[in-house]
Amino acid sequence: MLDALGIKKAIEYRELVDVLMGDKAFADVVLRGGNVINVLTREAYVADVAIKGKYILMVGDASKLIGEDTKVIDVEGKYISPGFMDSHMHFESSMLTITEFSRLSIPSGTTTLVADPHEIGNALGPIGMKAMAQEASVVPNHVHLVLPALTPDCPSLETAGYDITSKDMKEILNYPNVIGIGELQGFSNAKHVYSNTPEIITDLIASTSYARSIGKIVDGNAPDIFGNELAAHIITTGGKCSCHETTTKEECIEKLRQGVYVFMREGSTQKNMAQCIRAVTEEKMDSRRCILATDDMLSADLEKLGHMNEIVKRTIEQGVDPIEAIQMVTINPVTYFGLEDRGVLAPGKLADIAIISDLTNMVVEGVFIEGKLAAINGKLLLDMPKYIYSDVVKNSVKRKPLKEEELVIEAKGSKALVRAIELIPDQNLSGCLEFEVKVQKGIVQVDLRQDALYIACVERYGRNGNIGKAFVNGFGLKTGAFAESVAHDTHNIMVVGTNLKDMTIAVNHVIEIGGGIAISKNGRILDDLRLPVGGLITDELIGTQVSEKIASLEETVKRELDCKVHAPFMHLSFLALSTSPKWKITDKGLIDVNHFTVLDPIK
Amino acid sequence: MLDALGIKKAIEYRELVDVLMGDKAFADVVLRGGNVINVLTREAYVADVAIKGKYILMVGDASKLIGEDTKVIDVEGKYISPGFMDSHMHFESSMLTITEFSRLSIPSGTTTLVADPHEIGNALGPIGMKAMAQEASVVPNHVHLVLPALTPDCPSLETAGYDITSKDMKEILNYPNVIGIGELQGFSNAKHVYSNTPEIITDLIASTSYARSIGKIVDGNAPDIFGNELAAHIITTGGKCSCHETTTKEECIEKLRQGVYVFMREGSTQKNMAQCIRAVTEEKMDSRRCILATDDMLSADLEKLGHMNEIVKRTIEQGVDPIEAIQMVTINPVTYFGLEDRGVLAPGKLADIAIISDLTNMVVEGVFIEGKLAAINGKLLLDMPKYIYSDVVKNSVKRKPLKEEELVIEAKGSKALVRAIELIPDQNLSGCLEFEVKVQKGIVQVDLRQDALYIACVERYGRNGNIGKAFVNGFGLKTGAFAESVAHDTHNIMVVGTNLKDMTIAVNHVIEIGGGIAISKNGRILDDLRLPVGGLITDELIGTQVSEKIASLEETVKRELDCKVHAPFMHLSFLALSTSPKWKITDKGLIDVNHFTVLDPIK
Repeated sequence: MLDALGIKKAIEYRELVDVLMGDKAFADVVLRGGNVINVLTREAYVADVAIKGKYILMVGDASKLIGEDTKVIDVEGKYISPGFMDSHMHFESSMLTITEFSRLSIPSGTTTLVADPHEIGNALGPIGMKAMAQEASVVPNHVHLVLPALTPDCPSLETAGYDITSKDMKEILNYPNVIGIGELQGFSNAKHVYSNTPEIITDLIASTSYARSIGKIVDGNAPDIFGNELAAHIITTGGKCSCHETTTKEECIEKLRQGVYVFMREGSTQKNMAQCIRAVTEEKMDSRRCILATDDMLSADLEKLGHMNEIVKRTIEQGVDPIEAIQMVTINPVTYFGLEDRGVLAPGKLADIAIISDLTNMVVEGVFIEGKLAAINGKLLLDMPKYIYSDVVKNSVKRKPLKEEELVIEAKGSKALVRAIELIPDQNLSGCLEFEVKVQKGIVQVDLRQDALYIACVERYGRNGNIGKAFVNGFGLKTGAFAESVAHDTHNIMVVGTNLKDMTIAVNHVIEIGGGIAISKNGRILDDLRLPVGGLITDELIGTQVSEKIASLEETVKRELDCKVHAPFMHLSFLALSTSPKWKITDKGLIDVNHFTVLDPIK
Repeated sequence: MLDALGIKKAIEYRELVDVLMGDKAFADVVLRGGNVINVLTREAYVADVAIKGKYILMVGDASKLIGEDTKVIDVEGKYISPGFMDSHMHFESSMLTITEFSRLSIPSGTTTLVADPHEIGNALGPIGMKAMAQEASVVPNHVHLVLPALTPDCPSLETAGYDITSKDMKEILNYPNVIGIGELQGFSNAKHVYSNTPEIITDLIASTSYARSIGKIVDGNAPDIFGNELAAHIITTGGKCSCHETTTKEECIEKLRQGVYVFMREGSTQKNMAQCIRAVTEEKMDSRRCILATDDMLSADLEKLGHMNEIVKRTIEQGVDPIEAIQMVTINPVTYFGLEDRGVLAPGKLADIAIISDLTNMVVEGVFIEGKLAAINGKLLLDMPKYIYSDVVKNSVKRKPLKEEELVIEAKGSKALVRAIELIPDQNLSGCLEFEVKVQKGIVQVDLRQDALYIACVERYGRNGNIGKAFVNGFGLKTGAFAESVAHDTHNIMVVGTNLKDMTIAVNHVIEIGGGIAISKNGRILDDLRLPVGGLITDELIGTQVSEKIASLEETVKRELDCKVHAPFMHLSFLALSTSPKWKITDKGLIDVNHFTVLDPIK
């Protein structure tokens, strides 16, 4: 009747019953006398938690379950919580392998991660997603994938390494650690898609209907759409979806009312929780569909600030009851994802547990994963060898070297009115500005005083050699350039600079090292970071080394180039995100996201 | 990629998108300007609800979706709610077919029913459950079945018509309208089952694991068990279960804390909601796992009081916010059962809607099912022909006629101390009493003054001819007897009476008519009701006729026999329920439920 997995669980469960009902077997571990955080009833009270194998045996008075070999841990005065879940994130944004991300996040209490391999999918297609699913299956924490239904996100406006359609989905959707479809983006520009590429909607419904038919979920992302368009988007996802790009209180209210699970985002660059949570703190809405997620985390933030514990802490700071905030990283997401084997402290659930010594500040002292003590006081106890990817995911940069003249923007006369993307710190969203700049010998010039710099996006997959060119405001560079093969969502090479020569050198260095980051100044490379896996991830360094390296690169950009924005590489990478208003740049040019059109950089 | 059902839904969904995004197609129906009850956010606010085909298009300003052929219904001042759900019920208790029950319940706003064909399963085994699943598939409302995992409920203590095991489950669990396993009862007497029939636990885990593996749910029923036994029970159900027999506030608190979905029961005889709800009203517990259910409804109550609307009204009367109470019959149960296509008013959900003219009193004025107007002001608008069952489910009574001497209880001397079940009105639970009564010619006598009457349970499936005999207090009969083939859960023939002759006549009449109810007095039958389907249900009368007939039978029992308890047939039928403390009677004898033993009626 049952598959092997089912039989294994049935046998394990039978053993649990023997411990509870008999007198010959006992708990492996008892956490004694802590304040149990009950995310079901939204309370905390003193109780024991008994563990056998991977599972919680019971929560209550565990004294009868303690035998000679039971390890009893006194947790009096501390809080016992279900382990935390990050419900929407991309490992690629940290430039870390799953293993290295987990090495940093497990000690902070995160036991489950739902990752969208969207970036590696854009760069490498199914090969990349399968490679990531493979790594996800060997780490000790729980890592689930949700697949991008469609790349590129904005058909006809950008070039990805691979165009994924519903035909690619069936096989990968059936992987056991693939739990559904992530970021159903193509429809977020609803009117454009409906008018210009209606066949995409049919293809999306084919993917989502198939996913639903095998019991998997569909994340739909719906930034800044309302009313009939939002309704159409929800229906396209199959009627149950999430959005992790809700940015205002009003948008959050509308989404919650329409049945969308709002993933209140609070990551390294995008911080939307404080606005979204007002639907709960000010309007007293039922928070059962409010979930916290990071989307994108930098390794340094993981290391220094923590992960979901930090996000919960910030949510508490907004006036939310601590246990209600913890519900948003436990019971709420497990209900959404149907991961009902965890997320609460109750009989038969996986013993994924965070022991918290200070609830208001969310200081995590100990972490259990599947009943095993995984971390104490920030120190990982599990043995996690470095994970090395195979070569099939390591040759994603196929472009021939760039020539400086390819980056030129031409205009007649002595002055030009140019369009510049306005970088908004800590947001995916960008603004749109215009600057009057000089034209010399037919070439439009940067204007350092006004902070109107060159920005370009260079197709890197050898598919068409496109180069999108425009201006940008917000970085504040006074000299040099920097480039990277991380550029959401199609991950062509982005470059920002004060002069074409340094920009060309930086781009060509990124090509040469097979993907990564390069900083140039005065005609030479100052520093670089190799990101061999899809041009996005390093499997050469461990987590803390990546943090150090990025910090060092950021320091170089700040010191040597006078960059004024923090996290410059992450901010640059999001200026290519053509699903997120208002202006962005792809290999096809400057994109007016709201109107789904390509704009000339010269007005 | 998809099965036929999936393709059909994908096409329907594509049409919805066309209406929302295009300007050529419009809504079929718009409910304009009502107060929308949003069970997601726990609010009510003015908005339109637009419907296309079976589905809700959107909730908000629907003015752009109104075309020439759109039917616009003004519902200003009224409340628009998702249709209600009864999450645990047995059609058999009403003695009605699914069709006749629905005829009475749809106008009160109930659009989804989850039924456990437990009674017909006990009487007829898989044949009965399949016949009921067949009827469930043709009614216009949504009827889902959860299967009994195990009959009899108390192995070795009662005889059912068929012994169901995990081997019977696989085929029926795969029926589309079978959504899981209901009332995992066998474990509710945890210690006894563990000690005496441990193989049952393995068999139950086999059933529940299989159900879980195909994405179906498992209802576990856990009356009056706590601590380690409750934990073992929860684990046996696969770690997620419900209980609809929680009777006290303290029990409700414990269940909710352990992750059990508490189905607060409020039916025709069992009324536990007022106690259970105190966990919410007094302890302010999160109510997301609180659900309302009836378990057993009499047709007269359905007709006169209503169904889930009445239960919601009573819950509001206990101090619960009206929308929070409505959550308990909409979003809460659909989340538990994974019936995510309904239960909220949001895009893409089934247009199952109740229009409420008085929220506090839960007066339902109109009902839509799948976008069709199904009832107005209590009047059903749908065409529902009477449903006739096939003969294979109509010959369940196989016992040969009873002889009067078989009912005799013998004792020596002139007096005997006898054990009597104490009937507690409106409860499944019973008490235990002792009476000193006369013995004449070796035969123990009834004592009308003390209300110590004879009660017997007569095996009716031709399997062993058992007769269980004891005494009962609470009916207050002064003459005659009545018998019925409805006797939870194995449905042998129950009889209560003042003398052995009338009891024998009544039982034999029930046998003669192929199952049903019979009332006797002074050696003759006063009245009867045929229940040909499994000895439990009539398919000969429509809903209102059954109510009238039962009322007439109850009136006869009251007038002619001096019975002092209301709903005497339902009360008698529950005195056989050997899973529910304290004393009950089965064909094997007087049962001490707490100790799982058979007691001698003579002390």
